[in-house]
Amino acid sequence: MAQVPQQIKVAVDAVVFGYENQQLFVLLIKQRYGQLKDRWALPGGFVLNKETLKSAVNRELKEETGVSTSYLEQLYTFGDDVERDPRAHVVSVSYFGLVRPSSMRLRPTGDAKDAKWFKLSHKPDLAFDHNKIVQIAHQRLQAKLHYRPIGFQLLKSTFPFSDLENLYSTILGHDIDRRNFRKRMLTLGIVEETDKKVSIGRGRPANLFKFNKSNYTRLEKSGTILNLYLA
Amino acid sequence: MAQVPQQIKVAVDAVVFGYENQQLFVLLIKQRYGQLKDRWALPGGFVLNKETLKSAVNRELKEETGVSTSYLEQLYTFGDDVERDPRAHVVSVSYFGLVRPSSMRLRPTGDAKDAKWFKLSHKPDLAFDHNKIVQIAHQRLQAKLHYRPIGFQLLKSTFPFSDLENLYSTILGHDIDRRNFRKRMLTLGIVEETDKKVSIGRGRPANLFKFNKSNYTRLEKSGTILNLYLA
Repeated sequence: MAQVPQQIKVAVDAVVFGYENQQLFVLLIKQRYGQLKDRWALPGGFVLNKETLKSAVNRELKEETGVSTSYLEQLYTFGDDVERDPRAHVVSVSYFGLVRPSSMRLRPTGDAKDAKWFKLSHKPDLAFDHNKIVQIAHQRLQAKLHYRPIGFQLLKSTFPFSDLENLYSTILGHDIDRRNFRKRMLTLGIVEETDKKVSIGRGRPANLFKFNKSNYTRLEKSGTILNLYLA
Repeated sequence: MAQVPQQIKVAVDAVVFGYENQQLFVLLIKQRYGQLKDRWALPGGFVLNKETLKSAVNRELKEETGVSTSYLEQLYTFGDDVERDPRAHVVSVSYFGLVRPSSMRLRPTGDAKDAKWFKLSHKPDLAFDHNKIVQIAHQRLQAKLHYRPIGFQLLKSTFPFSDLENLYSTILGHDIDRRNFRKRMLTLGIVEETDKKVSIGRGRPANLFKFNKSNYTRLEKSGTILNLYLA
C-alpha cells in the first residue's frame, strides 16, 4: 500500500451521442458551481463510496440531464494529466453511448443548470479536458461501426435501407460503398428485407428493412469481428 | 463534489503477455504481503499522488518484475465489484502488452517475492479478480489482431512467413487462412519479402520476410482498420 494516504479522486463522465435526421449530436450540461461555473461540460461527477462505476455514471447522467440509457459502455480512463481538473488530482473513467434524442426528455438538476443537445460539429468549447474526451469517443464510435452492429435503437422498426446507410455515413463523416455495405449487412443477417414498401420522393417505392433482433444481439455480444469494410 | 469524503483507491495492473516458440505466456508475481500473501497475481499497485496512470503502471511493473516495456496500452477499468479487493474499495485501471520473454530479465523486488512467466493455458488461480482481467486482456489481444499490425517486437528482423502465421494462430488459438493472411499482409505493406532464404526441415528453402517499419508504424498509429479477416 502507498505510504502517504492516496488523495486521488475517481470521477465518471458520459459522452452521449445522439443521431437524428442525418445529424450527430452530443449531450452537454452547463455547470452550476465551481471555478468553471457556466462552462459547458460532459455530464458526470464523483463516484460515491461503495458505488460501482456503472451505477455512478448512470446516476450522474440521470441527475444532470434526466436521461436514462442502457447503452453506455466504457471508453477510456483519463489520468495522464494530473492537473486535468483544477479541484484535485482526478482520474475520470469515461463512458460513451449512442441514442435517439427525440426519445429522451431533458431535465437538468443537481450540478447542472442546463442540459442540451449540440451538433457535434458546432459544440462549444468544453471545460476540463472534455473536448479531448469527446474527440476520442467519436473516434471509438467510428471504429466500432466496422466491427459491431449499430443502429438498432436509432432507426424506426422498419426503414428504407438508405436510412441505415445515412446513419453509418453520418457517423463516419464520409460516404460509404453502399453496394458492399448492403450486401454485407444482409449476408450477416443483421438486417432483413420485409414485404413492405415506402415512397420516397419521385422514384419508385423503396423496400423496407428491419433488424433481425436475435442475429443483431448475438453479433453485438459475441465479440465476433464483423469486418464491415467501411473504409 | 461528494459530500462524504471519497474513500476509493486507484490502482493499476499490468497484463504482460509473452510470445515465444509458438506459445503464449503471462507474467505473474507472487505477493509478499497482505491477506493474499503468497498468492500469484498481476503486477500492479496503488497510484501515487500526482503520478500519472502511465507512470504508475510502468513503475509497478518495473519494481515487481524488473521488466520495462513501452508496449503497454490501456485495457479496461475494473470498478463494478466494490469488493474486488479485500483491503478497500479499489478501482483498477488495467493495461496490457505483448513482449518477447527471452529479451527480458526478471528481477522481483518490493511487494513481489517472485516473478515468473506462466503458459497462459497453465497459469495458477490468481488473487482478486485477476483471472477475469487476464481473460479480458486475452480477448482484447485476439480482437486487436484483426485490425492492427502485431508482431514487430516479437519476431527476428527477418523471418520465414510461417513464423508470423504461427504468432497469429497461437494468439487466436486456432488455425488461420494462411493464403489470405499472407496476401493481405503483403498488400497492406506491413511485411515485405527479402532476397534471403532459409532452410527449414527437408523442404525447399523458405523465403525470408521483414516488417516494413514505416508502413507498420503508420498503420499501427493511424487508427485505420486493417480488416485482417482471421475468422
